[in-house]
Amino acid sequence: MMTNIPHDLPVSRENDLAVLASAVEDELRQVVDTVYPDGLMEPYGLLHHMLAYHLGWEGEGSGPAAQGKRIRPILLLLTASAAGGDWQAALPAAAAVELIHNFSLIHDDIEDQSALRRGRPTVWTRWGAAQAINTGDLMFTLAHQTILRLRQTIGDQAALAAAAVLQDTCVQLTRGQFLDIAYETAGDFTLDSYWPMIEGKTAALLACCTELGAITAGLGEEKRRLYREFGRSLGLAFQVQDDWLGIWGDPAITGKSTESDLVSGKKTLPVLFALNQPGKFAQKWAEGPVHPEEVRSLSDLLQQEGADDYTQNAAARLTRQALQALEEAAPPGPALPVLTDLALRLLDRKA
Amino acid sequence: MMTNIPHDLPVSRENDLAVLASAVEDELRQVVDTVYPDGLMEPYGLLHHMLAYHLGWEGEGSGPAAQGKRIRPILLLLTASAAGGDWQAALPAAAAVELIHNFSLIHDDIEDQSALRRGRPTVWTRWGAAQAINTGDLMFTLAHQTILRLRQTIGDQAALAAAAVLQDTCVQLTRGQFLDIAYETAGDFTLDSYWPMIEGKTAALLACCTELGAITAGLGEEKRRLYREFGRSLGLAFQVQDDWLGIWGDPAITGKSTESDLVSGKKTLPVLFALNQPGKFAQKWAEGPVHPEEVRSLSDLLQQEGADDYTQNAAARLTRQALQALEEAAPPGPALPVLTDLALRLLDRKA
Repeated sequence: MMTNIPHDLPVSRENDLAVLASAVEDELRQVVDTVYPDGLMEPYGLLHHMLAYHLGWEGEGSGPAAQGKRIRPILLLLTASAAGGDWQAALPAAAAVELIHNFSLIHDDIEDQSALRRGRPTVWTRWGAAQAINTGDLMFTLAHQTILRLRQTIGDQAALAAAAVLQDTCVQLTRGQFLDIAYETAGDFTLDSYWPMIEGKTAALLACCTELGAITAGLGEEKRRLYREFGRSLGLAFQVQDDWLGIWGDPAITGKSTESDLVSGKKTLPVLFALNQPGKFAQKWAEGPVHPEEVRSLSDLLQQEGADDYTQNAAARLTRQALQALEEAAPPGPALPVLTDLALRLLDRKA
Repeated sequence: MMTNIPHDLPVSRENDLAVLASAVEDELRQVVDTVYPDGLMEPYGLLHHMLAYHLGWEGEGSGPAAQGKRIRPILLLLTASAAGGDWQAALPAAAAVELIHNFSLIHDDIEDQSALRRGRPTVWTRWGAAQAINTGDLMFTLAHQTILRLRQTIGDQAALAAAAVLQDTCVQLTRGQFLDIAYETAGDFTLDSYWPMIEGKTAALLACCTELGAITAGLGEEKRRLYREFGRSLGLAFQVQDDWLGIWGDPAITGKSTESDLVSGKKTLPVLFALNQPGKFAQKWAEGPVHPEEVRSLSDLLQQEGADDYTQNAAARLTRQALQALEEAAPPGPALPVLTDLALRLLDRKA
């Protein structure tokens, strides 16, 4: 199951990230190729193709952009290495979290009726909701199989601990998604509801990545908790930053105002903050959909009412929290600088 | 986690089946109740309710009829007991297969756009497809968590073997469902395609039940294979019998002809057999939808062309295969007569 990359590769330079990404891709392909029963290529060819299409390997528009950045598995491998583990031993865990992420995207796209994902038609728009639901279920199953491939690299006990973390994460993901759907239809989404929702939808899987990194490195409960907290705070900070970019990021405010979250009506953190007080923004918002030409004046209103500061402060606080947890965990491995760098770059995006 | 029923209860009488059914229900409830985070009943109340509604415990029309017969977990527990194991130790496996069965029903109902399930509105018609997909995903996760509760009753090694069997079964289920959806739209469903489809859709989960029974009883590879073959053949026989009943069963042919599978246009085994030869039935079928008043003449045509004999012979052959595998497995436990009786009753239904 192992590739030929030396185990002691110091993960500390930019080109090493490409090595990690390529190893993740190999592991994912191995798992997905198990979907063919022995010697029986047909009639399951399309089933395999739908998995490969969603993962960006096949079909129109396939390639690196369609594959996404694989941030979660890379974060997991870097954490494993920084925590003193062998990143190659953690590959099954890395593939498992990426499969969970992508299973949830396939289902979310149906639930949100999104026609495009990474610039390409979603699985359900290409092959119908029925096949897409079932393909997502298959990818979900593959993830649960894959995490137990850790038995061969880190032993039964650690693999069972890793599986328990992954399963618990899946419960949290469905809780977050439940809230997201419920608030979408009920319309009573408030600032108080924001945090439990992104805890499930965004932070849970990143917390899972860093905890699995610690588990594959053989660390105990207390260290695991610190690595987990690092990933969790990073995930919350990432989401808050994403919400900020949706209003004040480059494409949102300049050029294409239609890309602003204000136009799509998304209740992101700055909006929820402003709706929580009786100001002009809340008044405007209640009047109905925001038109592209109103984006600039509404984002200025948000800023005047403190939503910009509130959001940036929250992101900064959560980032500090993440880095503090990482510092307490005191990673001994050579990947620490790369890991810190990755975390900071995730939080310092311009768009 | 254990109930107070004595472990050595001889599972050999009708009323003991009620004891097993009740123990399964208790185990399922324990698992589903974990969905509430500690002390946080809201806002997750509806998420819990959707699970409990589908399982027949809550909402309008709840009760035994809405719960279904729980055939799979009972088959698993009887097999565990017949194979010389402790049926109480197998309860987590029993709950897990029932959760897998019900997760697949929640998703199948969306995929098939079925409005009713066991006489009640399906989850997606009550709460929308988005919530139903997500609730199915949660139930799927609970199943994977539950199978590993076996660690506490039969140890880590056996629990890992059981989890591998359950996961492999989920892959087979999605393969069968993939074929079902693909044939529905492509329209090229033939007699050759029938067997791989029901292998995945029906036989895989019953084979899983009997193999998990053998695993929880601590049996080795060879015995496990025989118990698995018992469940698999039983599942195939059950589906073939179901197809026969859909045309020649009591409600299908007498009284309500509208309930005949001929009217709904289902390509069941007798129909596929007849379409495979150039007879009058194939001609009639090609002419378009079957009206209720034509049911009697078309089922007579099927009979004349040998579809009745073919189907009954297939069911009888598969039943013999199932009982032969069970005989070879030579179960030492007291539950054998009840297990054989359950198998025969499953195959000797009048409607």
